[in-house]
Amino acid sequence: MTSKAHPSSWQVLVAAKHHECEQKIPRDWLLSADQLALAQETPRLLDIDLPRRSNLLSDIELELTESYTAIQLLDRLASGHISSLAVTTAFCKRAAIAQQVTSCLTETFFPEALERAKYLDQHLQREGKPIGALHGLPISIKDSFCVEGVQSTIGYVAFLENEPAKTNSALVEMLLQLGAVLYVKTNIPQTMMTADSENNIFGRTLNPHKTTLTAGGSSGGEGALIAFRGSILGVGTDIGGSIRIPALCCGVYGFKPTSNRIPYGGQVSGAVQGIPNLIPAAGPLAHNIADIKLLIGSIVADGQAWKYDSAAVGVPWQTIPPGINASKSLTIGMLAEDKHFPLHPPVKRALNRAFEALTRTGHHVVRIGGDDEAQSLAYASRVAFQYFNYGPHKDLVSASGEPVVTSVAKAAGPMSSGPFPAQQGLGPFETIQALHVARQRIHDVWRQTWVDQKLDVILAPGAQSTAVSHDTYGWPAYTVIWNVLDYPACIIPFGKASKELDPDPMTTSNDAQPDYHPDEVDGAPCAIQVITPRFQDEKCLWAADIIDRVLAVHGKE
Amino acid sequence: MTSKAHPSSWQVLVAAKHHECEQKIPRDWLLSADQLALAQETPRLLDIDLPRRSNLLSDIELELTESYTAIQLLDRLASGHISSLAVTTAFCKRAAIAQQVTSCLTETFFPEALERAKYLDQHLQREGKPIGALHGLPISIKDSFCVEGVQSTIGYVAFLENEPAKTNSALVEMLLQLGAVLYVKTNIPQTMMTADSENNIFGRTLNPHKTTLTAGGSSGGEGALIAFRGSILGVGTDIGGSIRIPALCCGVYGFKPTSNRIPYGGQVSGAVQGIPNLIPAAGPLAHNIADIKLLIGSIVADGQAWKYDSAAVGVPWQTIPPGINASKSLTIGMLAEDKHFPLHPPVKRALNRAFEALTRTGHHVVRIGGDDEAQSLAYASRVAFQYFNYGPHKDLVSASGEPVVTSVAKAAGPMSSGPFPAQQGLGPFETIQALHVARQRIHDVWRQTWVDQKLDVILAPGAQSTAVSHDTYGWPAYTVIWNVLDYPACIIPFGKASKELDPDPMTTSNDAQPDYHPDEVDGAPCAIQVITPRFQDEKCLWAADIIDRVLAVHGKE
Repeated sequence: MTSKAHPSSWQVLVAAKHHECEQKIPRDWLLSADQLALAQETPRLLDIDLPRRSNLLSDIELELTESYTAIQLLDRLASGHISSLAVTTAFCKRAAIAQQVTSCLTETFFPEALERAKYLDQHLQREGKPIGALHGLPISIKDSFCVEGVQSTIGYVAFLENEPAKTNSALVEMLLQLGAVLYVKTNIPQTMMTADSENNIFGRTLNPHKTTLTAGGSSGGEGALIAFRGSILGVGTDIGGSIRIPALCCGVYGFKPTSNRIPYGGQVSGAVQGIPNLIPAAGPLAHNIADIKLLIGSIVADGQAWKYDSAAVGVPWQTIPPGINASKSLTIGMLAEDKHFPLHPPVKRALNRAFEALTRTGHHVVRIGGDDEAQSLAYASRVAFQYFNYGPHKDLVSASGEPVVTSVAKAAGPMSSGPFPAQQGLGPFETIQALHVARQRIHDVWRQTWVDQKLDVILAPGAQSTAVSHDTYGWPAYTVIWNVLDYPACIIPFGKASKELDPDPMTTSNDAQPDYHPDEVDGAPCAIQVITPRFQDEKCLWAADIIDRVLAVHGKE
Repeated sequence: MTSKAHPSSWQVLVAAKHHECEQKIPRDWLLSADQLALAQETPRLLDIDLPRRSNLLSDIELELTESYTAIQLLDRLASGHISSLAVTTAFCKRAAIAQQVTSCLTETFFPEALERAKYLDQHLQREGKPIGALHGLPISIKDSFCVEGVQSTIGYVAFLENEPAKTNSALVEMLLQLGAVLYVKTNIPQTMMTADSENNIFGRTLNPHKTTLTAGGSSGGEGALIAFRGSILGVGTDIGGSIRIPALCCGVYGFKPTSNRIPYGGQVSGAVQGIPNLIPAAGPLAHNIADIKLLIGSIVADGQAWKYDSAAVGVPWQTIPPGINASKSLTIGMLAEDKHFPLHPPVKRALNRAFEALTRTGHHVVRIGGDDEAQSLAYASRVAFQYFNYGPHKDLVSASGEPVVTSVAKAAGPMSSGPFPAQQGLGPFETIQALHVARQRIHDVWRQTWVDQKLDVILAPGAQSTAVSHDTYGWPAYTVIWNVLDYPACIIPFGKASKELDPDPMTTSNDAQPDYHPDEVDGAPCAIQVITPRFQDEKCLWAADIIDRVLAVHGKE
C-alpha cells in the first residue's frame, strides 16, 4: 500500500484514529493474548464461544445477550424486571469482544450509552412508564448515520479530519425519542458499494461464522455484530443489497423496506445528491422477524417520520396488512435462476427445500421470470450498474492518498451479461431518459407478473452464493433487482452450506462471479429472500413470518 | 395566424376534427340559434339556465343533474331506484349543452356511454348488486387520459393524426372496473401549462359564471363542465395548479392529492419523461368534499392502484386519519401574503372571513411564512419555473404549423421576484443537483414549520386573484408551491367577488400578474385552499370538510 500524493500522511491519520478507537474499549473488556491467538487460528469463531470463554461477561450478561428476543427484553425493561444499565453493559461488553476478533465496529461510545441507560432506568422508576417503544434497548447502527458528538467517516481517510457530528440523523433522533440506547456504529466498505466491509481506517470485518469468508457489505459490521450477538437489533442501509448481503452472509434476518418508509435523511454520504438513481433504504437487521417488525413498526408507527425527514413517507404502519388473514395459503412466485448468475449448490438446495416445505403445507407455488429480457436479473443488474456509474462522482479516496481496497478495485459488474441499457455516449439528459425508460420496462413487466399470477410474495435466493472468500462476492444480482424495483425484501436465514451434501465444486463461466468451493464455504449460512411490491412492507414481513414458521417446522434436511 | 411550414394543412385537419366532433352531438340536443345568441350576449351564463330554458332536459333529468350529490346518486343507482341510463342520459344532454356555450369538451362518446349504462342496469337487475363503488355514475375526465377507441390529442394539431387510444389509462381502467360510465373528455390549454384552456383544435373554454373570464387551466374543461352541472364528478391533473385553478375559477371543489396516490400512468403527454421535475398528480373536481372523498377513497381503497400503474403508491385509504377525532379543534397555519404576489381584495376578504369564522368556532390560527426566503411563494415559484423550463422539451406546436395561443405566448413566470435558484449556464448534472438542493431547502423549512407550530393544516388563498379576463391569469404562485412540496391541497369555493364590497381597483407592480378590476370580476367565485403535508391526503380532506362546514354556517358576509 503506497501513496504517491501523500506518502505517509494518511497512515499517520489512521494510526491516530486506531489509537483513539482502541483507547475507548475499557481495559478490562480486552481479550487475553491467548484468546486472541485462539480466535485467529479458529475460523469458526462462534464455535469457541469467546464471550463465555473469556469470562468477561457474567452469567446474567451472557443470558441477556443470548436468551431473549428484543421484544422480550423490552417487555422486561418496561416492567422494570431488568435494568437498561444491565442490558446495555452486557451488549457493550459483547460488542467490544466482537470488535476485537471481527473488526465489526467503527465508533464506540460505551460511557455515553451507560449514562443514557442509567438515565432511562431512573426515568422509568420516577415516572412509572417507559419513554417509548424502545425504552432501554441497545441498538447498533451503521457508520453512515450521524450521532451527535460522534465522528462519521464512513471509512474515508479524507473524512478523518471532519468534526464529530453536530446533529443526529433523522432515524437516530427517532430511535432516541423512542428510548433506544445507541452504543456503537458499525463497519462498512470503502465507498459503501461492495460486499466486503473493508476500508483503510477500520480494517476488514470478518464473518464470525467463518472468518475466512466475507461478512458481506455494505452493512457488514452490522451482520457480524448481530451474528456474534453483540447486538440484538441493528440498522443498515441498502441500495443494491447492503442490508441483505450481510444478513445472508452472517446468518441473520435483514429487511430492506420500500425506500423512505424508514427515514434515511441526515446520513454522511460520498454520493452526489439529486441525480436520478436507485433510491437507498434504511432498514433493520435482527435475530428474528418479530424484532424486525418491532423496529420498523415503532419508527413508522402512525406516520410521523416526515417530521424528522422531509423525504420520509408519512404513511402509518399497518399491523394487519389489508386483505389477508392468518389462515390464508400464500401464492408464492418462485424466481427462475438467471443463466448469467447460476446458483451455487447450497443455495439451490436451501431454496428447493423451502419450496418443498411450503408446497407440503398447502401454499401455492408458481414459477415466474423466464423469457422476458426486461424481467431478467441480468437486465435489471445492467440498469442498476449503469445508474451507479453514470453522471458525476466524487473521488473521496484519492483525496487523502489512501489506496483503493481490493473489493473496490475489482469493481464487480454485470456487463458480461449484455449491452448497456442506455446507449453509451449519450448526453446527460438523454442518458437519464434512456435509463428511465429501461427502469419503466422492468417495473411494467413485473407489475404484470404480480397481477397475472395473483402473487402474494416472491420467494428467491438472496444471492448466487453463500458468504464466499473475501473479495470474491461479485455482482449482487439477486438483491439489486429489488432495489431497481424499490420492492421490500426480507432475508430469512435457512440452513447451512455442507460439503457432505454438496460435494461437487461448480465453476461459473464468469470470472467476476464466485465459483463454488465445497470446503471453503462449508458451514456458511444459507438464506432465502421474500419479496412484495412497493409499499407492501407489512405484507412482506407478514408473509416472511409465515414462511419462517413453516421452514422452522417443516424445513429440516 | 399564419404558418410557414404548412400554410393551411393544420387548419384543414382542425376543420375535419370540428366536423367530426359536431356530428357526435345528437341533433335534438342542439340549442336553438336564439338560445345560442342569448348565451353569447349573456356573460353570466348560469343565470340564464339554458338546461331548463332549452327544454332539452326533462324535469327528471334536470333534477338528476341538479339535486343530488354523487353519493346520493350512487345510493339510488345501487338500490335500483334510478337507472344508470337515466342518469347518464341526463348528464350527456347537459354536457352537450355546456359544450355548445363554453367549449368545455374535447371528445364525446355518448352512444358508448349510454350502451354501457344499459349494460350496468342489466347487470344490476341480473346480479342484484352493483359491480363496484361507482356503479352507473357518469364521470368526466381530462383529455390527457386515454379511453380505448377515443383520440387523445391534448389540443395539439400534430396529434390529430394519431390513432384512437388502443388501451385505457390506468385510472380509466380502474374507474371502469368500479362501474363508472365515461361519456366525455374535457378541454385543456395548448401545452397544458397555462391557466387558459385554449387550443387550436377545441377552442377556448369559457367560464360559465362569467364567459369573459378564464375557466382556468389546465383542467379548465372540467371546471366549466362541473360548474355547469354537466358533470357530477370529474378528474383533472395538476403540476402547478391545473386542478385547483379551474376549481377556484369556476367555483367548484378541486383536490390535488399527493402524487401517485391516484394512478397517473398511461396519459398522453407532451413532456419529456424521466428528467427530475415536479411530479404531477391526478385528482377530482366535484361539487362537495364528500364526493371528492368518494372518488379518491374508491380508487385508493385498500391500495390496489399499483396493479394498474407501477408508479402508483400502494397505500390504503384511511377512512379515519390517525390521531384525530371529530371534536378536535384545528391548529391552522395562516399563510402570509407574498409581496411579489399581492392578493386581490376579494381574495383577501374571503380569506379573512374564513379565518374569523374559524377563530370564532374555536379553531386555533397561527401566522406562518414570513421572513425565510426559502419559505416564500416567490422562491418556490422560481424553483418550479426553473424545473419547468430546464432540460429538453418537445416542440409539438410548430410540428404541425399551428400557431402558439396567446396564453402560451405570454409565458407568465415569477422571475421578476428574484434570481434563478440554480445558477444559469451550469451543465445538466450541476443544474439537476442545484435544483435538488433548492427544493430540499424548501422541504426542510416547511417541515420545520409544521413541527414547530404543531400545525394540522395550512389555510391559504388558492390564487392571487379570482378568475380574471382571458389570458391574464399570470404565474400561479399560490398553487405551484404545494406542487414543489408535493403536498395535498384542496380548493373550497367560498363567496363571490363583489364590486360593491371591494370597489377600489388594485394595480400590481408586476406586468405579468393580473390587476384587480372590480367591474370585470364582479360575481366571480372566490375560494380558499386547505393544505397538509405529503401523504396526509386523508387529513387534508377531513380538515377541509370541517372548515367547509364552519364556513357554510358561520362564513356569511
